[in-house]
Amino acid sequence: MRARYFSLAFIAAVLCVCEGYTLRSSVSWVVSNDVVVEDDADMSEEVAPALLVDTAGLWKKLGDSPGEIAKSEEDSGAQLSSRLFSYPVEKVKNSASSTPPPHQETARTARYIAHSSDWGVLSTISTQERIKGIPFGNIFSISDGPLDNSTGIIYFYVTPMDNSVSDLKMNPHASLTFSEAEGDFCRQMLYDPEDPRCARLTLTGKLVEVPPEDISFAKEALFSRHPVMAKWPVGHKWFFMRLELIQVWLQDWIGGTSLIPLEDYFKATPF
Amino acid sequence: MRARYFSLAFIAAVLCVCEGYTLRSSVSWVVSNDVVVEDDADMSEEVAPALLVDTAGLWKKLGDSPGEIAKSEEDSGAQLSSRLFSYPVEKVKNSASSTPPPHQETARTARYIAHSSDWGVLSTISTQERIKGIPFGNIFSISDGPLDNSTGIIYFYVTPMDNSVSDLKMNPHASLTFSEAEGDFCRQMLYDPEDPRCARLTLTGKLVEVPPEDISFAKEALFSRHPVMAKWPVGHKWFFMRLELIQVWLQDWIGGTSLIPLEDYFKATPF
Repeated sequence: MRARYFSLAFIAAVLCVCEGYTLRSSVSWVVSNDVVVEDDADMSEEVAPALLVDTAGLWKKLGDSPGEIAKSEEDSGAQLSSRLFSYPVEKVKNSASSTPPPHQETARTARYIAHSSDWGVLSTISTQERIKGIPFGNIFSISDGPLDNSTGIIYFYVTPMDNSVSDLKMNPHASLTFSEAEGDFCRQMLYDPEDPRCARLTLTGKLVEVPPEDISFAKEALFSRHPVMAKWPVGHKWFFMRLELIQVWLQDWIGGTSLIPLEDYFKATPF
Repeated sequence: MRARYFSLAFIAAVLCVCEGYTLRSSVSWVVSNDVVVEDDADMSEEVAPALLVDTAGLWKKLGDSPGEIAKSEEDSGAQLSSRLFSYPVEKVKNSASSTPPPHQETARTARYIAHSSDWGVLSTISTQERIKGIPFGNIFSISDGPLDNSTGIIYFYVTPMDNSVSDLKMNPHASLTFSEAEGDFCRQMLYDPEDPRCARLTLTGKLVEVPPEDISFAKEALFSRHPVMAKWPVGHKWFFMRLELIQVWLQDWIGGTSLIPLEDYFKATPF
């Protein structure tokens, strides 16, 4: 059984003829050949062809040897599909590790964290059966713009299959929380994650679908920072959302927290 | 003006005679000599004497040169007090960077993340004026036990001055969210933070004050992992809380999320 997996040509053929489902609960990550034939025309040209023809090349880029693909028979479906969630190392920017602005500049610090963070925790009111009405936190890869164009507006690329998106349908108000502990800064400074100088930012507001005229910016903002998003399975019906801000809450130093006026937040820049 | 800050002996003298307040909003981080004279008898013996006599030594341990103490006059109060939130590098365990269990072992993976994470995002229902009723996420340094004794129960060391603790007084139900992206694992594996293989864990339940008979364990669990907690300003009236679980939600692979029965969660071990 195992030997066939070593034939990368065979894997490419399998990709063209079969659908792979890996199921564990009511939410499934379906991986099908739709990904290849129906995926968005704007998807990254660098990686898209690899999905069609150069699977071996893509696996190599990701640091796996062909032999590792066949680690476990049980996982083979997931492994065939899992490449959809990986991205080449040269595209990973560890932006959170650069130096933050002076802490006194709170609006600029908030913008710096919002811009340099690659992910945050979105807190929604849960609609899940057992924890209905209780806040539920979930991880999202986000972007407030391409690396050279920060807007302060946080964009998301989400699927209705996600628990948090189900929550947002019932109540679109939510918070997005970042910590400087996500990067290397706090570790380098020897700040405990709860040290008030290890800055934390919570943006609260309403999540709305990105209007058609802004979708191309949202796509550029997200896909430039998370190139793998361009390859996520289309069956999941991904769409773009953004956070319309009500409050910007920051703790970036000893001496209490700051509520930053929205005008100051948007006027500041992280650069 | 600046020159006096270069005298470390003078700084030590100032510490003995004055109270320093750094105020920025309604919540203040008061730093006073109470810290030194009233601090808990169990506080780390290695660093406690330094607070009293060897301020220069402590600053050096933290990697700052004496000259850096006086970077800004405005910051001097905060800088005098900020040492209370730092801890020596040899005590920092980057536990999240070790290798997780096989993803099929979901209960063990959940326990691994709960045990190896040093911080998470707590989502509460906000009582803040502008965002009342909206979920609010905040960063907490946590522990489920000393490094060699995982319980699966998450302990917190909190102050009533904290926005989230105010929220919990009105509604103690909350979720605590972790991501493997907190450590180096996902970066090393080239997983985007939202990649389902970059595991995320959300523990939902009720936060309660730790009963007197369990306080010594809570203290050991937290202070062994976050030694700086022993030095946090007593004026903040810190106390211990723990999360009584209702639901364990995990995503650690492609193919959907897992709701892990509490019995399985507590039976498993992260080791």
